[in-house]
Amino acid sequence: MTNPALIDELKTLVEPGKVLTDADSLNAYGKDWTKHFAPAPLAIAFPKSIEQVQAIVRWANEHKVALVPSGGRTGLSAAAVAAHGEVVVAFDYMNRILRFDEIDRTVVCEPGVVTRQLQDFAADKGLYYPVDFASAGSSQIGGNIGTNAGGIKVIRYGMTRNWVAGLKVVTGKGDLLELNKDLIKNATGYDLRQLFIGAEGTLGFVVEATMRLDRAPTNLTALVLGTPDLDSIMPVLHAFQDKMDLTAFEFFSDKALAKVLARGDVPAPFETECPFYALLEFEASTEERAEQALATFEHCVEQGWVLDGVMSQSEQQLQNLWKLREYISETISHWTPYKNDVSVTIGKVPAFLKEIDAIVAEHYPDFEIVWFGHIGDGNLHLNILKPDAMDKDEFFAKCATVNKWVFEIVQKYAGSISAEHGVGMTKRDYLGYSRSEAEIACMKAIKAVFDPNGIMNPGKIFV
Amino acid sequence: MTNPALIDELKTLVEPGKVLTDADSLNAYGKDWTKHFAPAPLAIAFPKSIEQVQAIVRWANEHKVALVPSGGRTGLSAAAVAAHGEVVVAFDYMNRILRFDEIDRTVVCEPGVVTRQLQDFAADKGLYYPVDFASAGSSQIGGNIGTNAGGIKVIRYGMTRNWVAGLKVVTGKGDLLELNKDLIKNATGYDLRQLFIGAEGTLGFVVEATMRLDRAPTNLTALVLGTPDLDSIMPVLHAFQDKMDLTAFEFFSDKALAKVLARGDVPAPFETECPFYALLEFEASTEERAEQALATFEHCVEQGWVLDGVMSQSEQQLQNLWKLREYISETISHWTPYKNDVSVTIGKVPAFLKEIDAIVAEHYPDFEIVWFGHIGDGNLHLNILKPDAMDKDEFFAKCATVNKWVFEIVQKYAGSISAEHGVGMTKRDYLGYSRSEAEIACMKAIKAVFDPNGIMNPGKIFV
Repeated sequence: MTNPALIDELKTLVEPGKVLTDADSLNAYGKDWTKHFAPAPLAIAFPKSIEQVQAIVRWANEHKVALVPSGGRTGLSAAAVAAHGEVVVAFDYMNRILRFDEIDRTVVCEPGVVTRQLQDFAADKGLYYPVDFASAGSSQIGGNIGTNAGGIKVIRYGMTRNWVAGLKVVTGKGDLLELNKDLIKNATGYDLRQLFIGAEGTLGFVVEATMRLDRAPTNLTALVLGTPDLDSIMPVLHAFQDKMDLTAFEFFSDKALAKVLARGDVPAPFETECPFYALLEFEASTEERAEQALATFEHCVEQGWVLDGVMSQSEQQLQNLWKLREYISETISHWTPYKNDVSVTIGKVPAFLKEIDAIVAEHYPDFEIVWFGHIGDGNLHLNILKPDAMDKDEFFAKCATVNKWVFEIVQKYAGSISAEHGVGMTKRDYLGYSRSEAEIACMKAIKAVFDPNGIMNPGKIFV
Repeated sequence: MTNPALIDELKTLVEPGKVLTDADSLNAYGKDWTKHFAPAPLAIAFPKSIEQVQAIVRWANEHKVALVPSGGRTGLSAAAVAAHGEVVVAFDYMNRILRFDEIDRTVVCEPGVVTRQLQDFAADKGLYYPVDFASAGSSQIGGNIGTNAGGIKVIRYGMTRNWVAGLKVVTGKGDLLELNKDLIKNATGYDLRQLFIGAEGTLGFVVEATMRLDRAPTNLTALVLGTPDLDSIMPVLHAFQDKMDLTAFEFFSDKALAKVLARGDVPAPFETECPFYALLEFEASTEERAEQALATFEHCVEQGWVLDGVMSQSEQQLQNLWKLREYISETISHWTPYKNDVSVTIGKVPAFLKEIDAIVAEHYPDFEIVWFGHIGDGNLHLNILKPDAMDKDEFFAKCATVNKWVFEIVQKYAGSISAEHGVGMTKRDYLGYSRSEAEIACMKAIKAVFDPNGIMNPGKIFV
């Protein structure tokens, strides 16, 4: 069948006007936040119901057309890029919150519900959806589940996986599976729901998700602490975790802070200059709790692990302290950073970070490295800034060499080459640094179970 | 190859004396706590290393011998019963705690580590392993993972699944997979670790597990509250969860309490007799927190949801209140109870329970029903007591009819026919009440990926 004939048939499966083929739409819906691959989809289809998604998948099987799911397109690994004539299935019109259950604290969402929409809905009900990250204003629940999104509250609340009570998925065969039915306890064989979380749309598409909400946190309070060296951050984490449940434990380097302060719109946390900073947050739900945090802070100072620090005394101060961390990514984008999102177990962080620092400094002494990340989860964002004088192509070529060294160190420390950004196409060729050949073979065989014709987001995670 | 020749070859794969074939051993290691199937294994093998487990699995593939894993054998669904000439692989000699990481709060365990051993180890380190249930003194970590064990602290801490940082498994092919490498964040494709959790040994055997520990809870405090009816329990749960993180929310009926009090060794919680009781627990980490709990209790009384209640003021009182709940199972065992372990979403519990009560009462007015369970998770243990005058065989035959009605009601409420006991052989024929044909077909195909010769615990979960 010719492409125009294919598109005509596709148009019969959705509502009128819900297949787009104009150049602007193909370009916009054919890519995510990555810039490595030129978008080249055949068409964009916008289903409005589960039945329409099933019809599209059955049609794709019949004609062996590859499908790429599209949510908020905020991904950083090209998992939602259609570069090879695929049909993009965009969930923009399946964006309703369908039901709320007060006793179970669950919300049934269509996949196109925006993360912030769910967060706001929860807040309206006096509850809390705790998965949060920079792109929450545009990312969608379906995409969050496909990548098992993490973010800044993982230390307390875990990844998206922890908040998925039930899933409806359309498999690569077009079957609708209703997985786990929103139960807390369900010991009836393999938990297939878990397979679809983090599968980047390669097994099937999420068409409905029941998300759990939590009690709203009380009087969130942040401390920013300056440490004399990286090694001191770990005993600080340990000292606080002994006493309380932290809701965040982030870190950033002096270089990251300097760049944010240079903007001029965020006050410095305190005068003392330190090589590393930790931002930690907890619920000051009682006065005793806040006093306990201050006592732990003083203990850390006495031990020499902390040089200076500040604790927020108001919502405004809380916001200002968070800006020190949250503005980093946007601020350094000016220097065309080469980003890596890696993780190791928490205890290995200092040695791992120093080893990467050393190897980059040895070979490229003119490269500036900016570290920040979710150190309480072992997740580090490594950003190498382009020297102003260096050509962009030359910089990226050199970074590709750096990449290989970084991943070799990741492998040596038994870490992950993608902590929370997924594999997609950008990390695909490096998957072997984190997963064994036997594991990759199992993954491919599992994909064949759910997607025998290989039409669901092919070429993502593995070829 | 003849059976004696097979056994001789098996003996070469483990240490001397680590294959048993005497009648007592076959009988002891061939079954779990269920009594429905007569044990009939070929032999019991006791590996002492991962390599020995791999050798046994390769040998089993070569000779097409079925293997059954054996841990603490405390299962209630016959998942660890060898009734058809299988070789039992018992992990009693792989029972060491191998490593502890203070910063990551993780413990690397061999599969034969007993649950209590891990709990005690954690306590020695000032930490906490929160998965707890009646058989913790004999169940093993490998078995906990195989069944995704739940228990009495799920409302706060979740199932065993939440505490597995990494797994080493030997698949049905004999491959050793090192899954997730103990990372908190790892977005590198399908999380195969999740598949093996709750798979009841049908995909492979857990040979090492890294378990997470948590901060030790502070000043655990229990309330027992009596409610005028079942419907009042839900707003009580809601009122407390709005204010604090509960570590338990259990319930039991007046009949359950009466049987426990009749033992004479546990004091009544208070004088008022109520049809239903809730036991809830929280961390009274500060005085303000304890006052908040009392205020919430008073609010519940004012609303008419609670008739009477008591809050523990000491460790001894805490233990005594817990005995009211924990002694139920042992106490009612005198009446040869027919047990079911079912779940629905929390909000559906009252209607679901009443419907089952009504149908049993209608058809078997002489049957006494004792309800208890983890109502905060939607998990109910339904126990039908044998009338003294009724013959045991007649009773179980009638219960089989009841079973079908119960599962039809479970299906109507989109619940689970096995909330935390697993499927094994006892629930296998009822799996269709909770999982669709398409799901079961996917599970079978996934089993074929990891266990192409069908040697790993065959006949469990599905045929």
